[in-house]
Amino acid sequence: MGEIKFATGTWIYGTVGDRYLLGGYRQGLDIIERAKLISEIDGVTGIEMIYPADFYVGIDSIGEVLNLSGLDCCIVGVDLTGDPAWRYGSFSSRDEALRRRAVELSLETMDAAATLGADRINIWPGEDGHDYPFQADYSRSWEWFRSCLAEVAGHRPDIKVCVEYKLREPRNRSLVATVCKAALMCRETGMDNVGVTIDVGHSLQAGENIAESIALLDRLDMLYHLHLNDNYRGWDDDMVVGSVHLVELLEMVYALRKTGYDGWYSIDIYPYREDPAAAVGESVRFVKGLLALLDRVGEETIDAALEQDDPIPLLSRIREEILPAPADPPA
Amino acid sequence: MGEIKFATGTWIYGTVGDRYLLGGYRQGLDIIERAKLISEIDGVTGIEMIYPADFYVGIDSIGEVLNLSGLDCCIVGVDLTGDPAWRYGSFSSRDEALRRRAVELSLETMDAAATLGADRINIWPGEDGHDYPFQADYSRSWEWFRSCLAEVAGHRPDIKVCVEYKLREPRNRSLVATVCKAALMCRETGMDNVGVTIDVGHSLQAGENIAESIALLDRLDMLYHLHLNDNYRGWDDDMVVGSVHLVELLEMVYALRKTGYDGWYSIDIYPYREDPAAAVGESVRFVKGLLALLDRVGEETIDAALEQDDPIPLLSRIREEILPAPADPPA
Amino acid sequence: MGEIKFATGTWIYGTVGDRYLLGGYRQGLDIIERAKLISEIDGVTGIEMIYPADFYVGIDSIGEVLNLSGLDCCIVGVDLTGDPAWRYGSFSSRDEALRRRAVELSLETMDAAATLGADRINIWPGEDGHDYPFQADYSRSWEWFRSCLAEVAGHRPDIKVCVEYKLREPRNRSLVATVCKAALMCRETGMDNVGVTIDVGHSLQAGENIAESIALLDRLDMLYHLHLNDNYRGWDDDMVVGSVHLVELLEMVYALRKTGYDGWYSIDIYPYREDPAAAVGESVRFVKGLLALLDRVGEETIDAALEQDDPIPLLSRIREEILPAPADPPA
Amino acid sequence: MGEIKFATGTWIYGTVGDRYLLGGYRQGLDIIERAKLISEIDGVTGIEMIYPADFYVGIDSIGEVLNLSGLDCCIVGVDLTGDPAWRYGSFSSRDEALRRRAVELSLETMDAAATLGADRINIWPGEDGHDYPFQADYSRSWEWFRSCLAEVAGHRPDIKVCVEYKLREPRNRSLVATVCKAALMCRETGMDNVGVTIDVGHSLQAGENIAESIALLDRLDMLYHLHLNDNYRGWDDDMVVGSVHLVELLEMVYALRKTGYDGWYSIDIYPYREDPAAAVGESVRFVKGLLALLDRVGEETIDAALEQDDPIPLLSRIREEILPAPADPPA
Repeated sequence: MGEIKFATGTWIYGTVGDRYLLGGYRQGLDIIERAKLISEIDGVTGIEMIYPADFYVGIDSIGEVLNLSGLDCCIVGVDLTGDPAWRYGSFSSRDEALRRRAVELSLETMDAAATLGADRINIWPGEDGHDYPFQADYSRSWEWFRSCLAEVAGHRPDIKVCVEYKLREPRNRSLVATVCKAALMCRETGMDNVGVTIDVGHSLQAGENIAESIALLDRLDMLYHLHLNDNYRGWDDDMVVGSVHLVELLEMVYALRKTGYDGWYSIDIYPYREDPAAAVGESVRFVKGLLALLDRVGEETIDAALEQDDPIPLLSRIREEILPAPADPPA
Repeated sequence: MGEIKFATGTWIYGTVGDRYLLGGYRQGLDIIERAKLISEIDGVTGIEMIYPADFYVGIDSIGEVLNLSGLDCCIVGVDLTGDPAWRYGSFSSRDEALRRRAVELSLETMDAAATLGADRINIWPGEDGHDYPFQADYSRSWEWFRSCLAEVAGHRPDIKVCVEYKLREPRNRSLVATVCKAALMCRETGMDNVGVTIDVGHSLQAGENIAESIALLDRLDMLYHLHLNDNYRGWDDDMVVGSVHLVELLEMVYALRKTGYDGWYSIDIYPYREDPAAAVGESVRFVKGLLALLDRVGEETIDAALEQDDPIPLLSRIREEILPAPADPPA
Repeated sequence: MGEIKFATGTWIYGTVGDRYLLGGYRQGLDIIERAKLISEIDGVTGIEMIYPADFYVGIDSIGEVLNLSGLDCCIVGVDLTGDPAWRYGSFSSRDEALRRRAVELSLETMDAAATLGADRINIWPGEDGHDYPFQADYSRSWEWFRSCLAEVAGHRPDIKVCVEYKLREPRNRSLVATVCKAALMCRETGMDNVGVTIDVGHSLQAGENIAESIALLDRLDMLYHLHLNDNYRGWDDDMVVGSVHLVELLEMVYALRKTGYDGWYSIDIYPYREDPAAAVGESVRFVKGLLALLDRVGEETIDAALEQDDPIPLLSRIREEILPAPADPPA
Repeated sequence: MGEIKFATGTWIYGTVGDRYLLGGYRQGLDIIERAKLISEIDGVTGIEMIYPADFYVGIDSIGEVLNLSGLDCCIVGVDLTGDPAWRYGSFSSRDEALRRRAVELSLETMDAAATLGADRINIWPGEDGHDYPFQADYSRSWEWFRSCLAEVAGHRPDIKVCVEYKLREPRNRSLVATVCKAALMCRETGMDNVGVTIDVGHSLQAGENIAESIALLDRLDMLYHLHLNDNYRGWDDDMVVGSVHLVELLEMVYALRKTGYDGWYSIDIYPYREDPAAAVGESVRFVKGLLALLDRVGEETIDAALEQDDPIPLLSRIREEILPAPADPPA
């Protein structure tokens, strides 16, 4: 197992707001400054960018600043939510012209990614879905989405297309809502460069066990990208990793190792009120701490424990590591 | 579109209890009496049975009583929760002997169903899943389950195998949790007599839109059976149909019509404190009321509305029917 | 029981956006235009305003336009979320200067309300609460909030102070989260012009039964104001009234009648993608439909039903009204 | 701060089942054996009993076995769910005879508690609430409950009456659902020996922050008893402490220390499939581990951190303790 590579998204230095404070808790920085600041976060060597929003300075300038700052562009996301035109969907819009525009934007994103040396794009179709009952023709929406996705994938077989599922938000119900809905959608394209982005918070919000979602995607060779954050399960709170959960996140890193995931660990948080660098840095350190804990517990110990029905011995072993009793000499 | 056929399950007259009252709010009746009482519920012409629990009097006696009471046996469910042996799973148990026993039980259930004239069995694997993090080898569980399911389906191609998904309960996390997880599992068996049972309450609990789940299964020719009830979304409350929701249930019957579903509408409720016949009868009348409402609104009106993004005109039209203004002359 | 009075908030014509589209799905209109358009919504005779956001044209101009458009100002809300200064709270901020500023703003709001003929202000402290564990000193936060609230109430006994609770959003956890937390807070001020605003969606999100929350507040003489909308229970979706629920909303209007609530029915929705007037108008018509249904069923029928444990007879009676069987002649 | 005292409930050795397995995953033991086994769990010195279920051998025999096994009876719970008579409520039943019976049972429980040397009883009114809309007269239910509770409290001022709130289950909606609803109810009795039992899982299920609920009750001098367990937030899963959460549980023990809680830490779990002693023992060790962690981090460190808005420095400090980096020498 090679070194784990950490990345984060340019949006951590964007104008972070909510529906009650559209002006933002903080003003977004220009993209050059964002890259520079991200490169200074301890442990982060990759950057996740958004097309076209992040590219207004020209792709050459972007390439230069990444070079200078020593950052790898690990993936480029297509922005399918940041324009009111997408309000009723992108790949599944009733409007053929909009579907076309969404495909074109995705193709441009693939090219931009390739130029920056990234081998994959991220498609998070936040506006594809519905808000009200009786608002969508679900079968047709699915077919339109599937067809656009297949077309995008066919454009450049050298670029992987990662579909990021999410239960809801901004639409009340998403078209690509759960890990298995995403997997079905990808499979129905018939393309072999289409897979899934797991976002830890989306998985928690959907009531999934993250490690199980990883294992299922691994069976299908579809685990393409990973977003890390934390939440209270009911919503995509995009909090600092480890601020709420621990055991399930440890199980997640175990699953990532077992399945041989060798992609990026991208910290995708929304630091509404927090310092972005501090929040990302703490997230990275938490994941590194989990990896060290995994080493101390031992993969083979976990493998052996999973041969039994009873979960308590392993939980007990983990507890000994994270919460040593006062009398226990440190390991 | 033919006449809608309503059924209900024998468990409505079982010992209905909860973890705090294992003795039950009411004592279960013998199976002959259950069948008789179910046959007397207005509108109900089908019965859903459980194997082996309901068959202790011998299958001939069951056949006779169904004949006498004029009930069709629409489906037989394999009981994979009512014995502590299944506590860590059935088709996905770590114990090969238990997996074998679960398969055998399913094969017997198929034969019993065929004898009673039913062409399908229901598999609700309530104990397959996990409670704690680090308690399951998810990939192996999936494979064991898939393999057993395929074997069962291969036994009798004339019997359809319906897999009923549920997010959770009794396990904290189910293996077959959502509509698309069920669809993926069924597809991976490679058998064409394996499909999905949608339980309305399970769909609500999983955060799905029921009509969308129906449409997706229809695309895959996998909508095999239907359980009707209602809940507050957070749990499988198994309440009387229509006691909480209306618009989404109307959308559900519209989806069932559009997809040409011609199976049973089986009322699957848990009348903890209510009279079973009254609770099922009211559920049937509610669904019949929805179908009449669908006629009044008109499928073509809905078809046309779904060509538009705006949901309000159709919601408004539905409201005019269910909540006519005092001044409005009745339609 | 007098005529029901409907209002709506000026924000329906504001820049409605979300965290992914801070620029908004639609641009906000100026306040004069908002008032004019609201006055044209059928059935709406009241307007709910926000201080200071809506008052930039001067209070005299506001008064004039309300006069001209025939709108009553029913309540004025203090804006405690629209400025990043409040990001860690207003009345419960650690910063005394900010607490002072929040109090001053509330006092100004009271005066503005009085000038416009409104006898109450609304305090929705969206930023008071916390996001992370270990982020708040809960007891101190409570005390600071209580003390500021008491001070505000003491400023003008002729103006009622309405505290609007909400489980979460924008903070992950709100200080004033549930109906009983709000009631406790109000009671601890010791002031008799402090009460509670029930927002239907907030009540659903908190897992409450709305009618029960109304009944509890009525016992304490604390039901001061009412916001109407709908959602899927997991989040404050601010949807058109009746687009998801019906029976519980009918129970709500029954509870409002029984308790003699004579305040405004204020439609508080967020028409992200919908036409604001259409969405509010449909909401008003839905509530009027509920009131007509209540008349048809009869309060005394409900009173009598509530003497029994069994809920089915009344649910059945309601169903007969909303979903008459085809054979039934219309009432 | 004295030594922390741990207890657990006799139900861990009861017939633990669910609605699909009323016969239980395991058969209950007789009460003498339960006490004996509980006394052997490392770290447990107290027992929580249920009246009348646990007292069939006579109170003298109970007293003897507690004596012999060295267990303190910390509290006795009134069983208001284990008999179908309570199916529509106990203190809030429409049936005066049932309310009377519930009061009498509570008085007997107080006397039994006193005989065993316990100074408090627990009232968890699981059946008080409703399942369906329009099933309860909420104001009357509240008043009946309040009145019975006050009467019980008046019987013996030397015995504390602890009301345990829970959002739901077995009823779909509980009358005493949240910490503040419980506090309001207690306060309305006007008695000063009435307070609240916080069950960690109930608090999580209700969307509360446990430490905040502790702080609020402390303000009212109403934190009377504590039940420890864990869950996934959506349901009262009654899992081993620490199997899901950590940071919020650490915040909880901090809050318990700060408020000077000197009562029992009672492990209230439901070991459906687990060995009861192992599950309770692991829970105790986890809490002891949290207390040791609290010592290492230092209360004063936390106190100081709570003077700031930013949560990250303290989360970072906690992470250093639980997940030390490989390079870090252990503290």
